Amino acid sequence: MNVEITPERLRSLFRPRNVALVGASNKSNFSLGTYTNLTNFGFGDRTFLVNARGAETHGQATYTSCQAIGEPVDLAHMMVPQAATLDALTESAAAGVRNSVVLSSGYGETGEEGTAAQAELVAHAESLDVALLGPNMLGFVNFVDGVSVMPGPVPVQPAGPVALLSQSGASAAAMSEFATTSGVGLSYMVTLGNEAMINAAHVIDFLVDDETTKAIALFLEAVRDPETFRRAALRAARAGKAIIVLKVGASDLSARSAAAHTGALVGDDKVVDAIFEKLGIIRVDTIEDMMITAGAAAHLGPLPTSGVGIVSFSGGACDILADRAADHGVSIPPLGDAAMESIGEIASAFGLVQNPLDVTGAAVIKPDMFTTAIVSMSKDPDIGVVAVVCPLPTATDTLPWRGMPMARAIGAGVELAECPVVWVNQVMVPSNATVRTVMEEVGVPYVIPGLSQSMIALGAIGRWSERLRELAASEEHENAPLALAATESRTGNWSEAEARRLLESAGIPVVPAVLATTADRATTAAEELGGAVALKIVSPDILHKSDIGGVRLGVSGHDAVREAYDAVIAAAESVPDAKVDGVLVSPMRRPAPELLVGVVRDPQWGPILAVAIGGVLVEVLDDSALSPLPVTPDKAKRMLRGLRASAVLDGVRGGVPADLDVLATVISRIGDLALALGDDLTSLEINPLRVEGDLIEALDAVVEWRTK
Amino acid sequence: MNVEITPERLRSLFRPRNVALVGASNKSNFSLGTYTNLTNFGFGDRTFLVNARGAETHGQATYTSCQAIGEPVDLAHMMVPQAATLDALTESAAAGVRNSVVLSSGYGETGEEGTAAQAELVAHAESLDVALLGPNMLGFVNFVDGVSVMPGPVPVQPAGPVALLSQSGASAAAMSEFATTSGVGLSYMVTLGNEAMINAAHVIDFLVDDETTKAIALFLEAVRDPETFRRAALRAARAGKAIIVLKVGASDLSARSAAAHTGALVGDDKVVDAIFEKLGIIRVDTIEDMMITAGAAAHLGPLPTSGVGIVSFSGGACDILADRAADHGVSIPPLGDAAMESIGEIASAFGLVQNPLDVTGAAVIKPDMFTTAIVSMSKDPDIGVVAVVCPLPTATDTLPWRGMPMARAIGAGVELAECPVVWVNQVMVPSNATVRTVMEEVGVPYVIPGLSQSMIALGAIGRWSERLRELAASEEHENAPLALAATESRTGNWSEAEARRLLESAGIPVVPAVLATTADRATTAAEELGGAVALKIVSPDILHKSDIGGVRLGVSGHDAVREAYDAVIAAAESVPDAKVDGVLVSPMRRPAPELLVGVVRDPQWGPILAVAIGGVLVEVLDDSALSPLPVTPDKAKRMLRGLRASAVLDGVRGGVPADLDVLATVISRIGDLALALGDDLTSLEINPLRVEGDLIEALDAVVEWRTK
Repeated sequence: MNVEITPERLRSLFRPRNVALVGASNKSNFSLGTYTNLTNFGFGDRTFLVNARGAETHGQATYTSCQAIGEPVDLAHMMVPQAATLDALTESAAAGVRNSVVLSSGYGETGEEGTAAQAELVAHAESLDVALLGPNMLGFVNFVDGVSVMPGPVPVQPAGPVALLSQSGASAAAMSEFATTSGVGLSYMVTLGNEAMINAAHVIDFLVDDETTKAIALFLEAVRDPETFRRAALRAARAGKAIIVLKVGASDLSARSAAAHTGALVGDDKVVDAIFEKLGIIRVDTIEDMMITAGAAAHLGPLPTSGVGIVSFSGGACDILADRAADHGVSIPPLGDAAMESIGEIASAFGLVQNPLDVTGAAVIKPDMFTTAIVSMSKDPDIGVVAVVCPLPTATDTLPWRGMPMARAIGAGVELAECPVVWVNQVMVPSNATVRTVMEEVGVPYVIPGLSQSMIALGAIGRWSERLRELAASEEHENAPLALAATESRTGNWSEAEARRLLESAGIPVVPAVLATTADRATTAAEELGGAVALKIVSPDILHKSDIGGVRLGVSGHDAVREAYDAVIAAAESVPDAKVDGVLVSPMRRPAPELLVGVVRDPQWGPILAVAIGGVLVEVLDDSALSPLPVTPDKAKRMLRGLRASAVLDGVRGGVPADLDVLATVISRIGDLALALGDDLTSLEINPLRVEGDLIEALDAVVEWRTK
Repeated sequence: MNVEITPERLRSLFRPRNVALVGASNKSNFSLGTYTNLTNFGFGDRTFLVNARGAETHGQATYTSCQAIGEPVDLAHMMVPQAATLDALTESAAAGVRNSVVLSSGYGETGEEGTAAQAELVAHAESLDVALLGPNMLGFVNFVDGVSVMPGPVPVQPAGPVALLSQSGASAAAMSEFATTSGVGLSYMVTLGNEAMINAAHVIDFLVDDETTKAIALFLEAVRDPETFRRAALRAARAGKAIIVLKVGASDLSARSAAAHTGALVGDDKVVDAIFEKLGIIRVDTIEDMMITAGAAAHLGPLPTSGVGIVSFSGGACDILADRAADHGVSIPPLGDAAMESIGEIASAFGLVQNPLDVTGAAVIKPDMFTTAIVSMSKDPDIGVVAVVCPLPTATDTLPWRGMPMARAIGAGVELAECPVVWVNQVMVPSNATVRTVMEEVGVPYVIPGLSQSMIALGAIGRWSERLRELAASEEHENAPLALAATESRTGNWSEAEARRLLESAGIPVVPAVLATTADRATTAAEELGGAVALKIVSPDILHKSDIGGVRLGVSGHDAVREAYDAVIAAAESVPDAKVDGVLVSPMRRPAPELLVGVVRDPQWGPILAVAIGGVLVEVLDDSALSPLPVTPDKAKRMLRGLRASAVLDGVRGGVPADLDVLATVISRIGDLALALGDDLTSLEINPLRVEGDLIEALDAVVEWRTK
C-alpha cells in the first residue's frame, strides 16, 4: 500500500489541530526548544508531551504514550532516537495519529546501512498509513496558524505571503532570519530532510492550494521526484504563484559534494536550468536573492509586460540600476510620447526626462514630482512595473520622519498607478519598526532592499511572467501532436537513408539525395543533381562513415563519381558483417552556417532538445541551448538568440541572414517528431542542419533506438 | 598659479583644527544639519558660525565674516548661494583660510553656462591659493578626529579602517548606512561633487598616507584626472591598501546618462577594466560588495596565495559557496596530505574530509573541531585565507549566547592560524551589539555577511594580492625598454615592407618575404621559398590591399607567379598617384589559429594593447582582451587565457597546440615596441599573427603615425 500524499493530507500535517511531542525529555535541548517554541506561539495548550516513563517534563505532566492521550491527535513529532522510531510510529498509529515528523538522522544521508534503514522506515510508515516528513531534518513552522514544530529559536511574527522550503536544515534558520530582517513575511517554513516520503514537490502542491502563500522560496540540493515536481510547478504557474529556487550543483565541486550528502541524483545542471525555465521556475544564486525575489513576486504577482520604469532620488542610483539591468537582462525601455510629455511638464526643475528618471534633490521641495513620474510611467505600454528609489528611515531615524512628504507622494503614486509599483532602497539594510510604520501609513506594501537586488528580482519576475504566458502556448502545441505513419522496425541504429525518410515524413526538410546501388545510378544521379556531389555509404552498421573512408565530398565528373562510388563501397567492405544498402548521392552545398539539433533522453527529466551552432565554434565555446519538449517555434527562436555565437545566423562575411521564423519552425518540428516517436527513441540527431536564408536542410541525421 | 593638491594640503582640509560655516542661517536645513552634526561629534567648540548680519543662529552667537573670527581657521564650509560664492571665497581667503568646501550646485553639471561658472570658480580659488572641494556636493565626515562637515544626519561612531569616497552625494548616505549596519568601520566619508579642483585621485593620495585608512571604497562615475589617478593607485598598491571601485558606465544607458550628469568623459568601459586590473584596483558591481570587500581587504590585507579554505557548520552552505566560487573565479583547492591527515583525525564524527569542509551538527558537541580544521587548513600551502561559516547571534539572541563554545573554538583557530581567517555569516543581516561583543570576546575582527558576498570579496582580494605581486614584475619590465635603431620618417601610414622591417628590428618574427620589383625576381623568390606563395602590392598609399586587387594568394608555378605579379602591379596603377615599392612574395601557410594584436591610443589612458582571436570568431563574439603597456609575458598569457575562445589555441580538429610561452613573449614584445615608438605612434596592428605550435609569425602589419 502506498500512502497518497495529497494537499489535503498535508493540510492535516502542516495545519494540525494539536501535536504530540514523542520523546519529550528534560535532558533534550531539541525537546525543550520545540516545546518552548510551541508555547511561545500560543500552541502550548494543544501540545501533548509523551514521555515513556510519564515523568514531568518542561514543568508539565506527560503521557506515557499517544494512546494514553485519549483524544485524536493530528501530528506526532518524533524526537526519539533512531532505534526507537519504528516502535514509536507503531504506537502513535495505534492511537490514530496519521502524520509524523521524524527528526533523527542516520538514514539515507549516511550510506548503505542508513539507506536500508530509511527503506524500512518508509515501508513501516506505509504499512501504518502514516504520512512521514523527514527523517534527518529540523521540523517546520506554520506562521499562519502559529504552530512551530522546530527545535531552534523561532521569533513569533505575523504570517506573510512567502513559504520557505529547505533541503538543508542547518541553513534554514539563516534563511528565515534574513527574511525577517528584510521584511519578507513567511507563511510556512519547512525543512525537508531526506524526503523519504514527503518531498518538496508534495509541499509545493499543498502550498498552491494555501490561501496565505503567494510565492514559494525553495533551497534545493536535488529534485527527488521529477514527475510530481513538474506537475506541482505547473499547478503553481497556473495559480500565478512564483517558485524561486536556489539550487546547488552548478559547479562540479558542489554537484559532487551535494550528491554525497543527499544521496540523491543532483542532475546535469544545464538540464535543470532548461526544465526550470520551461516550468516558469525562477532560479537565483543567493539566499538573499531567493527571499527578496520571493517577497517581490508575492506582492507584485505576474507583470503585464517586463519593462521596468525607474524613478530615483539619486542619479548615481540610476546609473547603477542601468548597469545592473544590462547584467541581469532587464529592459529599461525608453519612455513613450505620453510619458515624456506628462513628465516633461514637471521636469523644468530637474532636467533630463528619460528612463531611468533622476528627480534630483528638487523632489525634496516638490515631492509630488514622485507621484507624477510614477503615474506617467505606469501608463506607458512598455512598462510593466515602476521601481522607485528613495531613502527610507534608517535605524537612527525617528517619527515624525523628515522624509514623510516624499513617502506620501510615492504612496499616492502607488494608489494611482496602472501597473505594480515597488519601492527600492539603495542598500540592503534591515527593515525596522519605523520603516514599517511609514510604509503602512503611506500605503507601500513592499520594499526591495538594494539596487542590484531589485534588478535581479524584477528581471526574474518579468521573465517568469513571460513564461506563464508561454505555458499556455506550449500546452496548445502539446495538444496538437505530430501524426506519423507507421515506421520500420524500431531497433538499433538507423542508416542515414532510413533517418532521411523519417525526417521527410515529419515535414523536416532534407537535402535532396538519391540512394544508388550501382556506380551507373550514382553517375546519373550526379548528373540529375548537377554540380559537385557528395557520396556517402549507407549502412545501419556503420555509424561513423567518415572514419572508415565511407564519405567522399566535392566529387564532380562522370569518372570521378564512378571512382568515388567504388571507393566508398570498398571502404564498407573493410567493416566485417556490415550490411550495405547503397550509396547516397547528394549535391554539395556552399559553406553556410550549420547547426546541430538533437534530442536525447535525460535519466531524470526525459527527452531534452539541444541546439548548437556547428563547426569549430561548438567545440571551442561549449555553446548550446537546451529545452524539454515540446519546443514551440517561439521558444526555438529564444534558444537560438541565447547562443553566444548567435550572430553567426545574422550572416557574417557576406553570408545570407538566416530566416529565423523558418528555422524555428524546423527546430520545433524536430522536437515534435521526437515526442511522436515516444519512449522507444534513445536519440535523434541532425548534424548538420544547414541554414542559408530560408533554405534549411538536414544534411545528415542519426536515429538511435532503445531496443538494440 | 596652480594650487598644488598634495596629501599635506588635504590633511589641513580633511583634518582641520577648526571650521567656519559660512552662510550659517536658521532658515537653512543644510546649515542646521551641518551644525548639529559638528556638535554631535563634539566639534561644536571648534566651529565658527559666519552670518553676514551677525544674527544669532542655531542658538549661537555668529561672526559677520571670517576675518571677524580673529583667529586662524583651517576650513571654510561654504553654504552660501552660488551667486555669493566668489565673494565669500575672497573674504575667507583674506582671513587666511586656505581650504574651502563648496556645496552649491549650478556648475559643471548643468551645461555650458555652469561650466563657465565652474572655470571662473576654480580660477578665483587658484588666484587666492585656496584648495577647493566641490562644488555640487554634500561635504565630508572625518570619523578619525570627529569632524562631520555634512548636512544629512550622520551617526556618531568609532573610526574604522575603510575610507568611502563618492562622486554621488545622494547615494553616499545610503552607502555609509550600509557600512554601519554591516560592521564596516569608516575612517572618512567624502562626497566629491564636480571635482573642480580636488578630485578622487588627490583624496586617494591623501588616504595612502593616512594611518587609520587601510582600504578605500570609491563610487565613481568618471575618472577626471587619469594621470594623478594612476599615480595614486600605484602608491596605494605599494602601501598594500586596496581600492575597491563601483564604477558606473558599463552599459550604454548608464554611460550616456553618467556623461550627461557629470559632464565628464566616462570612458570606454573595457579600457577602464583593463586599467583597473593593471593598477590592482578591485571593481565591484554593487554598493554592498564595495563596502563588504573594502572591509574584508582592510582587515585581511594582501593574501599570501589566493586559494580559499572553507570550514562550515552547514553542508548546504558548502554547496552554495562552491557554486558561487566557480561563478566568481575563486579557487577552493583540494586539501594537501598534511591537512587531510590532521583533519582526518577528528573526522570520524562527520564523515567526508574535503574542502569545503562540513563539520555538521557534530561541532555543537565537539566545538574544537572548528579549531583543528581552521589551523590545519591555514597551514596548507595552497590556502591563503580560511573562511569559517557559523551562525552569529541574531537580533533576538541575548548573552550568554548558546553559540559561544563554537565561537570560542573559532577564535582559538584565528589565534593559531598561519594565514588570515574570516568569519562568514550565511546571510546579509546586520551586525548588532551582541555580535560585536561575541566577536571581541573570542577575538574575531571581521565578519563577511553573506555566502555569495564572501566569495566575491575573497575572490577579489585574492586577485588583488596577485596584482600586487605582478606590479613589481611589470615595473622591472618597464625599466628594461626595447632599444630601437633610428627608423625612417615617422609620418603617415607605413607600407607592409616598412612595417616588416620595424617588427624584425624589434625581434618580432615575421613570415619570410622577398620584395620583388620585377616579375623575374618574383618568380625566383617563389622558387627559393618553395611551394605556393602569396603576392602583395607594397605601397604606403594603399592600406587596404585586397580591396583593390593588390593581393594574390596560393599562387604556384613560374607562369602563375609572373601573371600574379603583373596583375597586382596593374591593380596598383588603378590607384591615382600611388607610389609603388614593389611586390612582397611570401610563402603560403597552412590554416592555423590567427590572432589580431594591436596597440591603439585611448584618449584618456594612452596606449592600450588588444589581443583577439582572428577570423569569424572575433566578429561574432566580440572577444578581445585589453591591457595598458607594458604587457609582461605573464600578463599576455593571462590575456590569452581570458579569451572566451581561448580553446582555439589548444589545437582544435587536429591542430597543433600553441606554445603559449613563445606566443606570450611575442605579444609582450609588440607592446614593448609600441612603448619604444612613443607618442609619435597612432596605432600598430599585426593582423594576422599566425600561431602554429611555437612557429609564431606576423603575416601582415600596419603602422600609422600621428603626423600625416
